[in-house]
Amino acid sequence: MTSFSVGLLGHGTVGAAFEALLAERAEAIAATTGRRPELSGVLTRSRGDFDDILARSDLVVELMGGLEPARDHVVRTLEAGKPVVTANKQLLSQHGDELFGAAHTAGVDLRFEAAVGGVVPAIRVLHETLAAAEVERVHGIVNGTTNFILTEMTRTGASYAQALADAQRLGYAEADPSDDVNGKDAAAKMTILARLAFGAAVGLDQVTYEGIEHVTSADIAYARELRLSLKLIGTAERVDGGGLSVRVHPAFLYAGHPLASVDGSFNAVTIESPAITEITLSGPGAGGSQTASAVLGDVVSAMLPPPVPPAPAAPVEIVSDIESAFYLHLEVADRPGVLAQIAEILGLQGVSVKSVVQEGLGADARLTIVVHPIRESKFLAAVSLIGRLDFLRVPPRWIRVIEEVFE
Amino acid sequence: MTSFSVGLLGHGTVGAAFEALLAERAEAIAATTGRRPELSGVLTRSRGDFDDILARSDLVVELMGGLEPARDHVVRTLEAGKPVVTANKQLLSQHGDELFGAAHTAGVDLRFEAAVGGVVPAIRVLHETLAAAEVERVHGIVNGTTNFILTEMTRTGASYAQALADAQRLGYAEADPSDDVNGKDAAAKMTILARLAFGAAVGLDQVTYEGIEHVTSADIAYARELRLSLKLIGTAERVDGGGLSVRVHPAFLYAGHPLASVDGSFNAVTIESPAITEITLSGPGAGGSQTASAVLGDVVSAMLPPPVPPAPAAPVEIVSDIESAFYLHLEVADRPGVLAQIAEILGLQGVSVKSVVQEGLGADARLTIVVHPIRESKFLAAVSLIGRLDFLRVPPRWIRVIEEVFE
Repeated sequence: MTSFSVGLLGHGTVGAAFEALLAERAEAIAATTGRRPELSGVLTRSRGDFDDILARSDLVVELMGGLEPARDHVVRTLEAGKPVVTANKQLLSQHGDELFGAAHTAGVDLRFEAAVGGVVPAIRVLHETLAAAEVERVHGIVNGTTNFILTEMTRTGASYAQALADAQRLGYAEADPSDDVNGKDAAAKMTILARLAFGAAVGLDQVTYEGIEHVTSADIAYARELRLSLKLIGTAERVDGGGLSVRVHPAFLYAGHPLASVDGSFNAVTIESPAITEITLSGPGAGGSQTASAVLGDVVSAMLPPPVPPAPAAPVEIVSDIESAFYLHLEVADRPGVLAQIAEILGLQGVSVKSVVQEGLGADARLTIVVHPIRESKFLAAVSLIGRLDFLRVPPRWIRVIEEVFE
Repeated sequence: MTSFSVGLLGHGTVGAAFEALLAERAEAIAATTGRRPELSGVLTRSRGDFDDILARSDLVVELMGGLEPARDHVVRTLEAGKPVVTANKQLLSQHGDELFGAAHTAGVDLRFEAAVGGVVPAIRVLHETLAAAEVERVHGIVNGTTNFILTEMTRTGASYAQALADAQRLGYAEADPSDDVNGKDAAAKMTILARLAFGAAVGLDQVTYEGIEHVTSADIAYARELRLSLKLIGTAERVDGGGLSVRVHPAFLYAGHPLASVDGSFNAVTIESPAITEITLSGPGAGGSQTASAVLGDVVSAMLPPPVPPAPAAPVEIVSDIESAFYLHLEVADRPGVLAQIAEILGLQGVSVKSVVQEGLGADARLTIVVHPIRESKFLAAVSLIGRLDFLRVPPRWIRVIEEVFE
């Protein structure tokens, strides 16, 4: 099998995570693309030579951050006719015209999924799916730090200063959080989304942005009575008359808005178009491994022109007796020892109770139980035994429960 | 400019919407791809000849539905070395091995975004973004009819029969809803997602599925106290020991789960992987225009091998004075006529009030107002005038409000 050489510029948190992920996934990528990706060289401040790495690479990944020498290296790679994958939002928002121009002139790929929205594939979906639809508006929660802070303020009633301190302690905010909390980071990402959504050359200096430093927990509390939740929202939209508005500011969302339930350090993007109504993409904001995964996704896409249909699928074993949490509802006679008997039967089958709500009295007593994940056959055995108890007024009812992804 | 000939098989709701959308977007697609798409022919029961259409087409779109002659036409198109776009989930779930095998042998594209999840680009994201990550589990709300019915039961306390009747009256359920409510439609879609996520040949007969016919509104009500909401969930996941589980059944979700807030006829898919944690994609379930838009997205993707970087972006007018709804919080002296004066100022600037909450008494009185969308300059003019009123105890506070997409 032929190999595919990837040059890596930068070796911080994301660079190191990318190097590890590339090695881990090389085999699977080779099976998909027909070429085995391998690192041709790594450039850091203290080691490596850019010209040497460029000469030996089929593609260059730029994870240095900052404007120079990142701009120089990206342009020279594109001019050499080789694709570039970058996660550098400041570079794209301040030198977008030059970089996209160089890629277009050379006819090579410039990919940048990791520059916007963490693991959320907003760039890919905007670029490809929506070639068929005219985009009217893009809304985004594109900064995980500020979303974490606002979620904490909402959840605990903490002040902005307290919530920021918590975010710093937990690693969700930098020691100097200025560019996150004042909206500049989100503004840079919105220039990139606006360029894709509308084919418009929007520079960072054209984006109006406000941060969250002046938000009070009192505002959040008052607005909750109206079912409004506060987010730092980036917007890029067509305006009547032909212009474009690109901006970042705090905004309340009604409970029914698809971004209203995006909490914690998550990112999300909503794309609105008359033909499709709207699509929402959400996922964790950028951490080292998530960003590395988005970068590697771009590398794989760049390895795949033209698109190859998936290989014939292999037969597989289908498993039916799987683990799940369950809801169990029982209507019981209200007499001593009922809960104890039920708990004993569950325990004997290895079923562990997560929560119980008891309601009603006498002939109306009801138990609503949720149990931790357990193999289905064991749970059903317990339900079958419980169904024979003489104090049950109707047969037990049960439904599976899906746990939260993060608990 | 050269043209790109698209043959259309089937001319029902989606086929007609596709024909209209293709004409509407032809210019924009030509600008993106360098080729102008045009219809080479339409096959219906009463007109058109498949062999003739195939000979004159660069790509065939199959929207006939059913198994035959759709299977025959798709296979023959692929064998002729021409790409196919289809929205036919039953065909893919029952003849997937044959179709994907034919595409692989011929080395041409077989695309099917519209077969799963309405406008949600789950197929694209699974296929491309996640080439870099190992998928552990896919959860989906992939049937809009059942999600609509469960949402209505939750919202109104209606019985299953009542909610189904409402769904039929509003056009969210067919006259014969069997394949939707018994889970078979969702099961077919899960075979397609499982094939992509795990490269596994899963047939419809290997999927365990249950529907929602036996769900009671009492179950939903009891579980709400535990912050659980009920959805019809499709799951495809790796199981310890190397097998796969693919199933569809009602399940409760905790409020924090990304699918818990997907309501009404919306579809959503959550993809879980250790490297990325999880990505959620959501959007409207299949309607004619949404499905047509997903089909056209596939056509555009098939026109684009190898990927072309976007053309250089054009300068654009940036608009700053745009329309928005606003939250306005006022701390006022509680005396007669206060609300009237504020309402008068708002009205003179053309600002229309959506809701007012008045709280506190005497020196503690507060007004929390939400206004309908209005040009920012007009709202700020009103706020400036209100800020001069002598009964205000502190300066007015305001924050923008984003309206629900659907109201």
